[in-house]
Amino acid sequence: MTSIRNVSLTSLQTLETPAAVIDVPRMLHNIHRMQSRMDTLGVRFRPHVKTSKCVEVARAQIDAGATGITVSTLKEAARFFDDGVTDILYAVGMVASKLPAALALRRRGCDLKIVTDSVASAQAIVAFGAEFGETFDVWIEIDTDGHRSGIRPEEDALLDVARVLHEGGATLGGVMTHAGSSYDFDTAEALAAVAEQERAGCVRAATRLRDAGLPCPVVSVGSTPTALAAAHLEGVTEVRAGVYVFFDLVMHNVGVCTTGELALSVLTTVIGHQAEKGWAIVDAGWMAMSRDRGTHKQKRDFGYGQVCRIDGSIVPGYTLSGANQEHGILSRDREPDADIVARFPIGTLLRIMPNHACATGAQFPEYHAIVPDGDPAVWPRLHGW
Amino acid sequence: MTSIRNVSLTSLQTLETPAAVIDVPRMLHNIHRMQSRMDTLGVRFRPHVKTSKCVEVARAQIDAGATGITVSTLKEAARFFDDGVTDILYAVGMVASKLPAALALRRRGCDLKIVTDSVASAQAIVAFGAEFGETFDVWIEIDTDGHRSGIRPEEDALLDVARVLHEGGATLGGVMTHAGSSYDFDTAEALAAVAEQERAGCVRAATRLRDAGLPCPVVSVGSTPTALAAAHLEGVTEVRAGVYVFFDLVMHNVGVCTTGELALSVLTTVIGHQAEKGWAIVDAGWMAMSRDRGTHKQKRDFGYGQVCRIDGSIVPGYTLSGANQEHGILSRDREPDADIVARFPIGTLLRIMPNHACATGAQFPEYHAIVPDGDPAVWPRLHGW
Repeated sequence: MTSIRNVSLTSLQTLETPAAVIDVPRMLHNIHRMQSRMDTLGVRFRPHVKTSKCVEVARAQIDAGATGITVSTLKEAARFFDDGVTDILYAVGMVASKLPAALALRRRGCDLKIVTDSVASAQAIVAFGAEFGETFDVWIEIDTDGHRSGIRPEEDALLDVARVLHEGGATLGGVMTHAGSSYDFDTAEALAAVAEQERAGCVRAATRLRDAGLPCPVVSVGSTPTALAAAHLEGVTEVRAGVYVFFDLVMHNVGVCTTGELALSVLTTVIGHQAEKGWAIVDAGWMAMSRDRGTHKQKRDFGYGQVCRIDGSIVPGYTLSGANQEHGILSRDREPDADIVARFPIGTLLRIMPNHACATGAQFPEYHAIVPDGDPAVWPRLHGW
Repeated sequence: MTSIRNVSLTSLQTLETPAAVIDVPRMLHNIHRMQSRMDTLGVRFRPHVKTSKCVEVARAQIDAGATGITVSTLKEAARFFDDGVTDILYAVGMVASKLPAALALRRRGCDLKIVTDSVASAQAIVAFGAEFGETFDVWIEIDTDGHRSGIRPEEDALLDVARVLHEGGATLGGVMTHAGSSYDFDTAEALAAVAEQERAGCVRAATRLRDAGLPCPVVSVGSTPTALAAAHLEGVTEVRAGVYVFFDLVMHNVGVCTTGELALSVLTTVIGHQAEKGWAIVDAGWMAMSRDRGTHKQKRDFGYGQVCRIDGSIVPGYTLSGANQEHGILSRDREPDADIVARFPIGTLLRIMPNHACATGAQFPEYHAIVPDGDPAVWPRLHGW
């Protein structure tokens, strides 16, 4: 377990707050943990860059062995392609209005894969492809847990969509699924069961396509919890996961990381107190932490985040219990701290671990990446669509 | 009541989704509604630009009669000062580490006012002012409802802080309070009572300062609900409010606006369905809507937002009932809609009214401002700190 105990604290003290801080050794630990697991399981790994939206982070993932990336917007695809990544899966259902942007990327040399789960969209893709002479690489989204989009493995629509694509001249690239419901569990047994359901469902869909004489080279599954819980990945060719790169309190509650693996935090300054209530007021409100309250229904509710000292070590029992736009309310969980003013004087720098790294990161235009020796580096982050 | 029925729908159809759309006639209606009320009550009005973070919006507020603005970050102060606004209140408690940025703004000619509620910060302000030869204009934050920061009107600390500032050479500019707890009520009587508590508490603090021989020219109060509910504002010199400029579903539940006054919405495209569940999947997930679930505990829970047609008219009973990062789940509130595919075919453009305009706006780098005739204008929005 890499530690950041010896990070240059002086350099953190010069940052304006609130600031999003990446603990680079922890991030690299997380990247290597996931990549080595994927290598052991014998599958390719395609990280979802929607978590970081940051080319420096994606480069570290690719340097560690990732083959291509997953994106959540076409703006991400364009940004990461500009940075040299060519193998990109846009993992949100394609619609006609977004095909021109997808075409533009492919014409520039991007090996962009797109996704569909309906005959209507498949028809739009092949019609547009025919009109512009483009052979789109299309994957069919499979629903293995009922949480969002996709065609269930046994549905007739699976073959209908596949035939529209295949007969319409598109490349039928494979099937993909995402077991987002894995976030709802917190035992190894339950996570392993969701992972097996995700694997088996996606493999079954691929088998149905192949049995019908249709191509299905790729079988792509993944979420951070299932990627870390799967007992085996027989029949799967690649895995996708996003939040593992930073982890967060939601993932900690799910049980797939320790708090010592959380690589993203928000640096904040104590700006006041309500001493009688045991509150310190910090300059990280919901604009900095995001409104994500993902731990609210989990086994432990961390409010708007776990309070840490500037060196990243946890202050047990202290969380952000409330948040206004630019004000966070820091308090002790069980009973008010009568010594709150002395414990956290005005001007104290603290770091807050977030509930959900994808949501918190999105509030910031850039990260400050810290390493044991040396100044923080500024890593820009993509914003918007 | 201004309507947008005759907005150019063709121009909306060319926007990439998701997109943040401002209905300009509605926004101007809201601005004039609030300004005329302030004029009638005989107070100056200082809108809080944290809601829009957009110079075009602030210009409309100033054109309508606002005297100065309120900001939530020093980055906002710098941006709006660059645009020509000089009278700016930074309404978050000042700390030593932010004084250099405040000094830089004042040295450039910005009439920046800062806020404190502690002896420690007051001492830091006067020490820094003495060191750099700057006379800061400081307002004391008053706590009139216990929801966040500030000194209660009868606390000894009020005079202690005021004397540190006054004797230390700062300009004691006044007192300010924000009754954020007003968001928790939804009857005219309760809102009027919170407004009176806010007014009376802040005036009482001013009276205590003046009785002690200390200056207190400004008495500044405000929140959108209390600004709209106050029976009178005797003793108050100025009011601040932010979200009224767009309003949102939270404010609708509070009871201070109709849905016809909501000026901000998110344009989205239907990208898929789960027909058996009665779901349409749209490309506005929580990254577009924000994670704000402010209506969850109110009298009506709108999920992640109210569904509207492209012309802005409401589709009654349909909300975003769930959200992933780039996927929204649109469903009928009471029972699944068996006709969801026909009602909202793939490619359909819809607009979603947000729970909280400040949070939803923050997810976008720019707004698309629509007027009855003509193309949407792109209005940039400030992001980060």
